[in-house]
Amino acid sequence: MKVAVVKESAPGERRVALVPEMIARLRGAGLEVLVESGAGDRAWLADSAYAEAGATVVSRAELLADADLIVMVGKPDRQLAGALRPGQAILGLLSPLADPGLAAALAAQGVTAISLDGLPRTLTRTQGMDALSSQANVAGYKAALLGAATFGRFFPMLTTAAGTARPAKVLILGTGVAGLQAIGTARRLGAVVSAYDVRPQTKTEVESLGGTFIELASVRDAAGEGGYARALTDDERQAQQAELAGHIARHDVVITTAQVPGRKPPLLVTEDALKEMSAGAVVVDMGSSPLGGNVAGSVPGETIVTGNGVTVIGAGNLAATVPAASSAFLARNITTLLLYMVKDGALAIDPADEIQAGVVITHDGAVIQPATAALLATTQPGDDAPGGATP
Amino acid sequence: MKVAVVKESAPGERRVALVPEMIARLRGAGLEVLVESGAGDRAWLADSAYAEAGATVVSRAELLADADLIVMVGKPDRQLAGALRPGQAILGLLSPLADPGLAAALAAQGVTAISLDGLPRTLTRTQGMDALSSQANVAGYKAALLGAATFGRFFPMLTTAAGTARPAKVLILGTGVAGLQAIGTARRLGAVVSAYDVRPQTKTEVESLGGTFIELASVRDAAGEGGYARALTDDERQAQQAELAGHIARHDVVITTAQVPGRKPPLLVTEDALKEMSAGAVVVDMGSSPLGGNVAGSVPGETIVTGNGVTVIGAGNLAATVPAASSAFLARNITTLLLYMVKDGALAIDPADEIQAGVVITHDGAVIQPATAALLATTQPGDDAPGGATP
Repeated sequence: MKVAVVKESAPGERRVALVPEMIARLRGAGLEVLVESGAGDRAWLADSAYAEAGATVVSRAELLADADLIVMVGKPDRQLAGALRPGQAILGLLSPLADPGLAAALAAQGVTAISLDGLPRTLTRTQGMDALSSQANVAGYKAALLGAATFGRFFPMLTTAAGTARPAKVLILGTGVAGLQAIGTARRLGAVVSAYDVRPQTKTEVESLGGTFIELASVRDAAGEGGYARALTDDERQAQQAELAGHIARHDVVITTAQVPGRKPPLLVTEDALKEMSAGAVVVDMGSSPLGGNVAGSVPGETIVTGNGVTVIGAGNLAATVPAASSAFLARNITTLLLYMVKDGALAIDPADEIQAGVVITHDGAVIQPATAALLATTQPGDDAPGGATP
Repeated sequence: MKVAVVKESAPGERRVALVPEMIARLRGAGLEVLVESGAGDRAWLADSAYAEAGATVVSRAELLADADLIVMVGKPDRQLAGALRPGQAILGLLSPLADPGLAAALAAQGVTAISLDGLPRTLTRTQGMDALSSQANVAGYKAALLGAATFGRFFPMLTTAAGTARPAKVLILGTGVAGLQAIGTARRLGAVVSAYDVRPQTKTEVESLGGTFIELASVRDAAGEGGYARALTDDERQAQQAELAGHIARHDVVITTAQVPGRKPPLLVTEDALKEMSAGAVVVDMGSSPLGGNVAGSVPGETIVTGNGVTVIGAGNLAATVPAASSAFLARNITTLLLYMVKDGALAIDPADEIQAGVVITHDGAVIQPATAALLATTQPGDDAPGGATP
C-alpha cells in the first residue's frame, strides 16, 4: 500500500501530516511512503529529509495517480477532493460534523474517508492517536505565549532597581487539554493563574499545575459525554456569564478555550464583561470561529481593541503557528492509527471495531459513521417535508 | 517648578516618561506636574488617571508655554526641539553621542538638556536612576518571548501521549542586563540555555540563572570601562566569530544583545554562521540598528528568512512593545534622578556633581558634558583643516 503525504493548501496552514521520523515505522509495517514535493516546507522539513528517511518525493499528479491512501492535516480542498478516484482513501481532520457535504461527496465518489476527529477519546488505547488533544496541547502553549507577548507588562513578578513589577493575573476559561497547557505555560512564566470549567472534576488538575480553580454558584456541574461539557441551558448560560464577568474584570489576561464539537462555541466573555475589564487587558479567544467565539466581537485571525482598551485576539489555527511541534505530534497520532488499521500491508476496514466506527466516515460508497450519517439524514437535499429539521 | 510630560512622537514608541504613581512623589518635593493630553494613551494610561493622581492635563501649546522642565522617553523631534525657549529644560534618553547635533542646537537655544543615557552606571546610588538598565531588562524579557513565539517547536520539554518534545536549545550572546533577563525568561519557559560574553566575570550570574556559560579559546577577557566590554581588535573579532559559529549552529534560538555605546554594534553571527544553522532556527538581534546589528543581514523592525530557513528578527525598540512595564520603570528612574537634582522646588544644576556631570549635557548656552563636548569639537562645522578627524 502506498501512503502519500499531500501539501496542505489552507491559508495559514503550516503543518504536515507526516514527519520523516515516522517513515521507518510505516515502512516497517510494509507500507510505501510518497511525499508531495514541498509538503513539509512550511514546517521546515525539506524534501531531502523525507527522501533520506526512505520516502519517495513526488509531484501532485504522481501522488494522485499512485496513492492508495492520502494523509493530510485538514480537509481536501475542492480540487483535491474532486481528483480522488474510487477505491482511494483519504485521512485527515475532515470535520464531518461541520462539513457533512464533503463526506457525502467522498462517499459518492467511492472514496474511503477516515477522520481523526471521529476518534473515541476516552479509551486508553486511543490516546496516542488523539490528534485533537495533541493539537490542542500545542495551541494552548501558543495562546499563553501570545497573551504574554501582547500584554504590556511582565507575567512574572520582578524586583529590580527601578521597582517591583507585580505578577500578571491570568484567567483560563475551559480546562481541557488546551486550557491545562495554557495554565502550565502561564505558570512557567510566573503569572498568577486562575481557571474555570463547567466540569468541577478538573479542579485537581488545575491545582496540580499551580492554578486556583474558580467555582461558580450558578453552574455546579455540566460534565457531559465523552469528556466534554454538556451544553448549558439559556438560564444557566446567562447566570454563568454574569458571575464570570466579576472574575474576568479582576484579571489582566484571559484565555478562553471552550469548544463543544459540532456546535457554536459558548459565549463566556460578554460585551458587558469586556467593558468591565481594565485598559491594557488582553483576551485570547481560542474558541474564535466563523460561527462565533467565546468572546463577544472576536474575529478569527484578527486582533481588535475595544473602546475601553482591551485587546481581543481572535486566535485562529494556533497549532499551525508552531508547525514543527504540531506536525511531529500529528504524525505520531496518524502513524499510530494507521498501524492499528493496517493488516498485512493494507487498510483493513472494519466498521464493527470500536475505534474504526468513529474514524471511518465513508466506505464502499456510503457514509457509514453513525453521527455523520444521522446528520446527513436530517439535511437530505429535497427533504422539505413539513417538520423536516434543519439544524 | 512645573514638570511636564510630553506625548512621544517617534514611530512605534508606546512608552510615557511618567506614570500616575510617581506624581505624588514629585508633588511632595514641591513640583507641579503637567501632562500633555494623550501622553499615556499607548501605555493604557488615561488622562483621567494622571488627573486623579494630581497632575494637570494640558495641550501641547499650554505645555510649551508653562513647562520649566519637559520630561520625555526619547529625543524631541524637530518641531518640539525648535519650540523650546531659553531657560527651559528637557530630560529624556537624548543619545547625545549618537546625535551631538541635537545637543549643540539645544545649547544654542539656551535650553538645559538632561540625558538619562549619560548616567554613570557603576555607582550604587545611580541604580534606581538607570533607565538603560531598566529598559534593557524589559527588552530582554520580550526578546525571549518573541523567540519562543516565533520558534516552530516548544521551549519546554513535554511528554505527551503523542510523544516527547525535547526542550529548545537557546543561546544568549551578551550577558548584560538584557541578556540576563533573556536567559531567565527562556529558562522559565523550560529551554536549555547557554550564554556567552567577552566578560568572563558574568559566568556566575549566568550559572545562577540556570544557564551554561560558554568559554571561547579565542577571546579570554575583554572587560572594559563602566561595566561595558571593550572593542575587540579585528583579529580577536574574527577568531571570536569563527569559534562562535560552531556553537551557534548547535542552537535552535539565538538572542544577541551586544551593544557598545556610541559605536556600531559588534557582528557576532556572521553570514557563514547563519548558513550553518538548521532550518527553523530563530535569531533575535537586539543589537539591530541603522548602523548594523549583531547578526549579518538583520534589518531593524523587520523579520527576514534566510535561504536555509533561519528566521532573523531585527528587534527594534522592544521595551516600547511592553509599554506599561517599561514606562513604570522609566518613570521611577526619572523621578529618582529628578528628586536628586531638585533643591527647594527647582532644578539645582551642578556640573561638579559626579552624577550631574554625566547627565547634564547642555546648560547656560553651552554643551558642558565632557564626552559630548569632545565629540562636537572634532566635528565642528567648517572644521575642514587637514587632518581634521571625522568619525
